[in-house]
This record gives sequence, structure tokens and C-alpha cells, in this order.
Amino acid sequence: MDEQSFTSIESVGRTSLIEQITELCSYSSDAVISGVGDDAAVIDETGDRAGLLTSETFLEGIDFDLTYTPLHHLGYKSVSAAVSDLLAMNGKPEAILINLGLPNKLSVGMVKQIYKGIDAAGNDFGVQLAGGDLTASHNILSVSVTAYGRVQKKRLTYRKGAKVDDAICVTGDLGGAMAGLRILMREKSFWEEHQNEQFQPDLGDYEYVVKRQLVPVARKDVVKAFSEQEILPTSMIDLSKGVVNDLEQLIRASGVGARIYGAALPVAIETRQVADEIKEDVDKYALYGGEDYEMLFTLPEEKVEPFAEAFNDFVVIGKIVPEEEGYAMQPPTGGEIRFDEEQE
Amino acid sequence: MDEQSFTSIESVGRTSLIEQITELCSYSSDAVISGVGDDAAVIDETGDRAGLLTSETFLEGIDFDLTYTPLHHLGYKSVSAAVSDLLAMNGKPEAILINLGLPNKLSVGMVKQIYKGIDAAGNDFGVQLAGGDLTASHNILSVSVTAYGRVQKKRLTYRKGAKVDDAICVTGDLGGAMAGLRILMREKSFWEEHQNEQFQPDLGDYEYVVKRQLVPVARKDVVKAFSEQEILPTSMIDLSKGVVNDLEQLIRASGVGARIYGAALPVAIETRQVADEIKEDVDKYALYGGEDYEMLFTLPEEKVEPFAEAFNDFVVIGKIVPEEEGYAMQPPTGGEIRFDEEQE
Repeated sequence: MDEQSFTSIESVGRTSLIEQITELCSYSSDAVISGVGDDAAVIDETGDRAGLLTSETFLEGIDFDLTYTPLHHLGYKSVSAAVSDLLAMNGKPEAILINLGLPNKLSVGMVKQIYKGIDAAGNDFGVQLAGGDLTASHNILSVSVTAYGRVQKKRLTYRKGAKVDDAICVTGDLGGAMAGLRILMREKSFWEEHQNEQFQPDLGDYEYVVKRQLVPVARKDVVKAFSEQEILPTSMIDLSKGVVNDLEQLIRASGVGARIYGAALPVAIETRQVADEIKEDVDKYALYGGEDYEMLFTLPEEKVEPFAEAFNDFVVIGKIVPEEEGYAMQPPTGGEIRFDEEQE
Repeated sequence: MDEQSFTSIESVGRTSLIEQITELCSYSSDAVISGVGDDAAVIDETGDRAGLLTSETFLEGIDFDLTYTPLHHLGYKSVSAAVSDLLAMNGKPEAILINLGLPNKLSVGMVKQIYKGIDAAGNDFGVQLAGGDLTASHNILSVSVTAYGRVQKKRLTYRKGAKVDDAICVTGDLGGAMAGLRILMREKSFWEEHQNEQFQPDLGDYEYVVKRQLVPVARKDVVKAFSEQEILPTSMIDLSKGVVNDLEQLIRASGVGARIYGAALPVAIETRQVADEIKEDVDKYALYGGEDYEMLFTLPEEKVEPFAEAFNDFVVIGKIVPEEEGYAMQPPTGGEIRFDEEQE
């Protein structure tokens, strides 16, 4: 250990740490077209095709809570999250590897439940379970997923590539997964307070948002539509950390700025109801809520209408502006909310 | 949860559980030439080349102990272990993805130490760090490594493929990593008993075995020699769980039996000294010691001498026999030790 004093990771920030680490690791392979810094690594296969590679780790107590997460949903969601990264490169998922770190508290039947979810996702997304491992773990369940996919090189879509005046688009609706998490956490505290009573939670009213949290479905359909319509987004990223954070990654990679139209953010009525009930601002869910696994992409203005005729589950939420105009939102109430001043 | 009672994973066994899981997950992709059941998954790239994919997860307290594992060694070993799986398919490693789950106790400097080891391994094995993620973790450090490599299809080497009368060969020597672990654990207990005293462990006498445990070097050299000599092993596996266990995987996949020549097991003098000092049987280290990351392969009898002229760091430790003759060792003292009776 050569450090003199303890600098916490929090104080430096994840993005800065990743930059420092990437500088440390200097070896470069001809096989890699694009490495750290996008949704997936791009591998040079022969001819006009590229391979895509991503991996994610989910730890109990950090990324999921087994008190309210059915194990087959956990299996499904893990695959969906990894596959979503390949789709965000405009690719086709093909295979996954799964490593589970298994604590004693899990039975054989419980492990099988996880794989039932993995199998369901495998069928939905067309990916084969091609490897991985089962190992022991103390106390917590860990799930690591590696996903491999393919893409025609000419259809590869990076985070970089957004151009000034492009329309910023998102599929589906926003903030649902966060609303679902709020409900599940509320039920969990209620349950903890009433452990000795007969109590069967009724999540029926919240089915939509709870599903958005527990079993998000990666947007294979929009990538398929791009291909069928022969439309190429100029840039793309999947929504795992909330629109504000993910769009920031995209515009930073593209060297541009962005204006979000606050009034255009798509929010489901069920998400709004939860925010109202909990007395929170639904815009916060829409802007900062993670794990929606919707797709955020940019299209040249003139491509929006033709694409909308073929694929209707997306809306325009803003437009790309020159870098010097920075990153901000025009809220429906007028004025401007800036997202680029915190760090400066 | 549909299970009626709690069946522990231990009671069913890892191999049987993996089989049950593989049956559960039925989706099959054209992109996958070979999936679960070998050192790495084989992906069909265009033309005469295949891609190789493997991933491993290492959890603190299970797979490593930070009280005696320098962080840069941990980084190096994680890469070495993953890359070893690609080499065992006769492939060339090209890229890695690393996910770290980071507890608060780790500083920025400590995380960088891990990546210094990853960088050193990247240079040694010719692999680019092409992605991954840093996430939070409670209490324990988790390290997940995905490795991607390539191989000419005609040079692909599976666990299956061993033929009756083939020579069973191993590179390097056996049991060193286990001897190193014994020393490190002994030093740890000593240190725990003398926490308040000035104490600087002197591992100088044990440098060889401690290195075998902490910084194993995957056998890129033997794969390079196969290629240069245009010799193709009939089957191959890397030694991560000890010769007896890993050879069992290989002969099971190949549908053959094996005889190990006990007198031929290569053991370093330093390994023997540790076993003597700790009053343990050094054969146990050689047969069951894990994490040596040596290569176990089979060669047609007539290829052994020509290969030995070009590459001298391997020995013949047995031969492949018909399946019905089972799996056993001829110890130097005569008689026979069977490895195939425990499970039946």
C-alpha cells in the first residue's frame, strides 16, 4: 500500500475514479474496437460484424433486497439489465454467463427459482446460458452476469455521435421503477412493524410500478424497429441511473449540450399516483429514478416522424444543443433548471 | 417458492446442481458453438475463428483474505485465473472486463493498487481492460472478471477429446499454491495471537510457495509452444481445483478412464518442505491442492517426445485408459488408490 492517507471513494467520485483507473491500465489489444466508456465493449470480429461484451454484478443488500424480491424476478432482471447494455449499442444479444455466489440460506429450490427467471429472460431476449459458475458466499447472494451480442459494424451506435439539433427521445415511460421501489420499501417497513400479525400485503393497486421495479423488460423492440426501418440513431444509452445522469453521459461522450422539455417527460398515471400518495415530486422520479431500462437515443429531427409511424412507444423529450449552451431543462412552469452547475 | 422443504446445496452437490440448472435453461443461440461444461464458452465468429468467453467471481472471505493478500496481487491473480480458462481452450486472451463491489473500508489508493495488479497481468497476458464497473458493497470486496479471447477453430481444444493411451501431462509443479496458503494461514493465526507485539512476518523462506498462492501465472507459454510446434493436445483443462478433481472433469467429458502414476507427480522441493514442516502428506497437496493454474492436457503418446524437445516444463503423470477401467492412481508404494468409488 503506497497511499499516505485514506481518501474515500465517495470523496473522489465514481466517474473520476474510473478515469484514473483507465489511465492506469494501458495495454491495448487489436481485438478491441472500443473499450471502457460505453454501454458495452466492442470486439472486432472478422468482416463487417462486431462483438459486444458487457458485465454487471448485483449484490444483495445493495442492488436488491430478498425480503421483497422474488428470486425468479431477480434472475430475470439481472439478465434484462445486462442485455439492455447490448441493445443500447444497437446490438443483438446472443449469450450470457452467470456467476452466483450462494450463501447457505439458499436452498436448491431457491437457486432453481433464480434460473427459472434467467430462463424466461433467455427466451424473451433470445440469449443462451453459455457458462458461469456457482460458488459459496458468506451471508449475501451475489449475481454476476456477462452478456455477449453482435452487431453489424455499420449499425453500431455509441454514446458519442449526438449532433446539435438532434431530437432526444426515450421509449416507454419514466420513474416507474423508482415508484415501485418506494412502494416495496413501504410495505417492507409495514411488515417489519407487524411481524407477529397475520398480514398479506396487497400490491394489486401498485402492480404496474412494482413490475417496473422487479421485472424490467429491456427494449429489444426499439432496436428491432431501427433495423426494420433502416433508421440509425446518432447515439444511444440505456436508462439505468435516471434520465439526467444517463443523458449527461451521452452528451459528455458526444461533446454537446442538451435541453430537456420538462412538459414532455413521459410518466405513467400509476407512477404519478404513487408520488402523490407518498407526497413526493413526480418529476424527481422521472428525472432521477433509476432502473427503468428504457432506451434514450438521439435522432436527426427529420427522422422522428418516419420512425414514429413504424414504432409508437417513444417520445421526444428534448433536443441536442451546442456544448457551450450546457445542460438544462425547460420546466412547464417556465424558467430553466440547470444540470451543469453542480460540478463546476 | 415452490419447494416444500429446504434442500441444501451442499447435500445435492455443485456438479449435480449445475446439471439441473443447465436443463432448466433451454434457449439455444446459433452464435454459441459450445456452452456450459468447459473452461470457456465458444462463440462462432465469422470464418475460421471462434471467440472464447469466461467469467469468474471472487468474494472476500471465501476466495481471498485481505489480511494476507496484497491488493495488487489480488488484481493480478483474478486476471490470471480468468485468462487461464481461455488458455485451456488453446486460445489467445484479448480483453477483460472487471466489476468491483467496493466496501467503504477501501480507499482510492487501495482500489488503484488492485488495478496496478490488473495492469501488470494485462501486460503479461496481452489483454486490454475493456470495461466493467465499480459499485458499492457492504463489508466485503467482490471481484468479477470476464475474459474474452480468440482461437482458430481447428485449434480449439476441449475437455472432451482425450483418447485411450494418450499421455496425461501437466506443466510446472503441483500443490505449491496449497502449501503457500498453509503458510499464510499459519502466519495469520500467529499474527492474531500477537497483535499487540511488534511483529514483522518473515516469509522469505517460503517465497516460492507464497508466490504460487498469491500471484499464480497462467500458462500462456505452453499454448504458444503448441502453436509453434503445430501440436494439438487432444484435450485440456486448467488446474484450479486440484489434479484429481480437474482430471475427473476431463475424463468425464471425454468418456474415458485414467491412471495417474503417483511417482510422476511433479512437486517442488519448497512445497515438500512446507508439508514436512506442517506434518502433512505432500501427496495431498499435489493431488487435491487447488489454484495452481497449471495446465493439464493429453497428448497422443508419439507426440510427447517431439513436444518435450521444444517445451521442457511439463511431465507425463499418467495415461488415459478405457472408461470401464475407471479412475485410479498407482502410488509409488504399489497397489492402487481409486478415485471413482466415492460417488458410486
